[in-house]
Amino acid sequence: MKPLSPTDQLFLWLEKRQQPMHVGGLQIFSFPEDAPDDYVSKLAEQLRNDTDVTAPFNQRLDSRLAQPVWVHDVHLDLEHHFRFEALPTPGRIRELLAFVSAEHSHLMDRERPLWEFHLIEGLSERQFAVYIKVHHSLVDGVSAMRMTQRMLSTDPSKRNMPPVWDLSVRAGQKVDRSEPSLWHSIGHLLGASGKQLGTVPTVARELLRTVTAARKDPAYNSIFHAPRSILNRKITGSRRFAAQSYCLKRIKAVCHAYHTTVNDVVTAMCASALRTYLMNLDALPDKPLIAMVPVSLRKYQKPDGSKSEGQQAEGNQVGVILANLHTDESDAGTRLRKIHQSMQEGKDRYAHMSPEEILNYTALTLAPAAFNLLTGMAPKWQTFNVVISNVPGPKEACYWNGAKLEGMYPVSIAMDRLALNMTLTSYNDQVEFGLIGCRRTLPSLQRMLDYLEDGLVELEQALVS
Amino acid sequence: MKPLSPTDQLFLWLEKRQQPMHVGGLQIFSFPEDAPDDYVSKLAEQLRNDTDVTAPFNQRLDSRLAQPVWVHDVHLDLEHHFRFEALPTPGRIRELLAFVSAEHSHLMDRERPLWEFHLIEGLSERQFAVYIKVHHSLVDGVSAMRMTQRMLSTDPSKRNMPPVWDLSVRAGQKVDRSEPSLWHSIGHLLGASGKQLGTVPTVARELLRTVTAARKDPAYNSIFHAPRSILNRKITGSRRFAAQSYCLKRIKAVCHAYHTTVNDVVTAMCASALRTYLMNLDALPDKPLIAMVPVSLRKYQKPDGSKSEGQQAEGNQVGVILANLHTDESDAGTRLRKIHQSMQEGKDRYAHMSPEEILNYTALTLAPAAFNLLTGMAPKWQTFNVVISNVPGPKEACYWNGAKLEGMYPVSIAMDRLALNMTLTSYNDQVEFGLIGCRRTLPSLQRMLDYLEDGLVELEQALVS
Repeated sequence: MKPLSPTDQLFLWLEKRQQPMHVGGLQIFSFPEDAPDDYVSKLAEQLRNDTDVTAPFNQRLDSRLAQPVWVHDVHLDLEHHFRFEALPTPGRIRELLAFVSAEHSHLMDRERPLWEFHLIEGLSERQFAVYIKVHHSLVDGVSAMRMTQRMLSTDPSKRNMPPVWDLSVRAGQKVDRSEPSLWHSIGHLLGASGKQLGTVPTVARELLRTVTAARKDPAYNSIFHAPRSILNRKITGSRRFAAQSYCLKRIKAVCHAYHTTVNDVVTAMCASALRTYLMNLDALPDKPLIAMVPVSLRKYQKPDGSKSEGQQAEGNQVGVILANLHTDESDAGTRLRKIHQSMQEGKDRYAHMSPEEILNYTALTLAPAAFNLLTGMAPKWQTFNVVISNVPGPKEACYWNGAKLEGMYPVSIAMDRLALNMTLTSYNDQVEFGLIGCRRTLPSLQRMLDYLEDGLVELEQALVS
Repeated sequence: MKPLSPTDQLFLWLEKRQQPMHVGGLQIFSFPEDAPDDYVSKLAEQLRNDTDVTAPFNQRLDSRLAQPVWVHDVHLDLEHHFRFEALPTPGRIRELLAFVSAEHSHLMDRERPLWEFHLIEGLSERQFAVYIKVHHSLVDGVSAMRMTQRMLSTDPSKRNMPPVWDLSVRAGQKVDRSEPSLWHSIGHLLGASGKQLGTVPTVARELLRTVTAARKDPAYNSIFHAPRSILNRKITGSRRFAAQSYCLKRIKAVCHAYHTTVNDVVTAMCASALRTYLMNLDALPDKPLIAMVPVSLRKYQKPDGSKSEGQQAEGNQVGVILANLHTDESDAGTRLRKIHQSMQEGKDRYAHMSPEEILNYTALTLAPAAFNLLTGMAPKWQTFNVVISNVPGPKEACYWNGAKLEGMYPVSIAMDRLALNMTLTSYNDQVEFGLIGCRRTLPSLQRMLDYLEDGLVELEQALVS
């Protein structure tokens, strides 16, 4: 029996019918070369028999003295968690994304361990997919990505590799609970009292007090300047997931030419996609959109020049940058330069902060959004419009029992007033984008995939001309 | 804009994460003889383009003055409602039932019209399936079955037959809202005040008042005698669906030999299956289980001898019989005779009642269960253990655009304290059982399909010996 941290309780509190709080990951594999045509169904049979379920996958929610706790699930029913499914013909990526969109819209059964593993056959060209869904109260996004990586190997000849629910936890390491999390900083903001707060109204009151105090402080005033936009409406319960890989080499070429980081370029691609998407809906605000960008700060504190890539660093100090996306700027090259400057300013702000100050600043940046989410009240302060998150991924080609991982895409959370989440990860020679959004608030979200590509092409063309 | 009836509001009130309140139907079709191998994907393409959505499929929930109303959904997104999906290999009925089990566990998105139409390919032997899911507040079970029938034809050569969401409503006929419903009788019990009750506590208080008064009345006392059993525990959010066809000819042979109705025989099959299932779990109560069996009363009021089959009659007067299933009786033949007698007594009770009295009696029978459901309180009065419902189905072979309907299975609702629902329907020369239950409360529910068959064999063998 283990009590949930205040942060993990947040994800239970925030969850409602229209706002499920699980995260996911989609992986596409190709068959091993010598695999028979019924490879996936044989794999399914093998996985179905892998009934050794390790922590945290064997933990379910319970409550003790009105507090949520994790307990060992003695009735674990693997058939509920491991699902073997198929795509309809013609089995294109389009059908796969429709499948993930529908599955990611469904709430999870809170009376069971909060994870699902979907093995998906029916993709064309001898490929198959895995969609893993885990509740954010059980595992955060970065940890989920790490766990997935632990399931994989860079050795294509390796076999007998267990699925993610049967990975032994390395001794002395709380692999899946000790990761840095932005939401943990809210817990920090609430201070030592956080553990005793216990109820939503108390937490909300604390947040409001802190935010109101901060508005009077000129040093924090800069974090309350985002425009209103359709991205910041209330959401419905159905999702659209869109995902695509982009060539890292092309992105790096742009980043070298402009003397920016890879992260600046992908942020500029997002800015361009958002600009085009909102312009087509006649909904682009006059003022530039602001993105909340989580950054890892360890490497930043020991800067190594212009190629420092905060987000791709490993570390346990996380901050957020409120990046001005300059969506009011029509020239792509100028926009990238301005975004680079905006990101740099954000990082500079952290440069002389103590770890304690970084935690405070980060928590405060998130506090208004957390307050609105918890109370359901319309935001008085729009601090940011969209979340753009870059999760570190494997740098080399990976394999699972000889099946090559062709692409891996994060599936994150859309929330009230934050109808779109753009999460990306790097894998081998690719940058993998996963966009999740409310299907009604953001119609035809999948068009953004083309606009991201257009954003990259724009930057390449600006170089040529 | 149309306000919801008090009855339809009940289904919204009763719905929670662990207790979705939608009903469904599963249909299995075989390909038309001349159909190409990609028949189902072509059909999907055609259905996807059928964007004329008629009432009630174009209605979504909204609220006016804190009362729920149906409004026209101007943003209808057919892609959300029509889903083309596939079964994993080997595409047996087992995979189909697993698919329906998972889908039926998911809550529907209340911000959209409350229906889904799943076209499912990947069944072996040139078959495909359709699983339709509709919220009970939008359509009741009998109406859903009627709508499905209206989609079909007995003419195998007929083509250009639209899907269920594009059936024109016949002029002057409220096809989908005017059906008899058991829950309507609760509305009746609440009297004219029902429309104004408006909140769960008020309704619960009214129900409690009525039930308490009834217990003092010896005439009603007989309805409070069911034993406690595992069927009457709280449920979790995941479901198991099990379905199978049984030969009507065999059932009729038994019913003629014993001079009972078809309905008595299928009820005896259910009794036998429940007895075996609970015995194997060492959970069979000493006292016999009581089933709540809805019956249509129009034909009963004009009895035509021993072959009167109340439930298969058409009519708008519905009553419920609390049938003693005699699960304490080990001899199958004796059990059937006793069940016949129990059913007959139930019907006799109604014989001299006025329509008003029938409504009252029916509502009262359901009131304790409704009270427990609304308040979440443990039942003080267990009036019945299980619901066995027989919905009239087509008597001849049916076709949809030339594809022959091979089987159709109702998918009903499991509720707290009513963890199992056994709904059956007749089709052509078959009796079609659909069992839906809580996956955790009732482990390996699918075994009941064999026990139903065993129950029939038992009766056949009792005849021979």
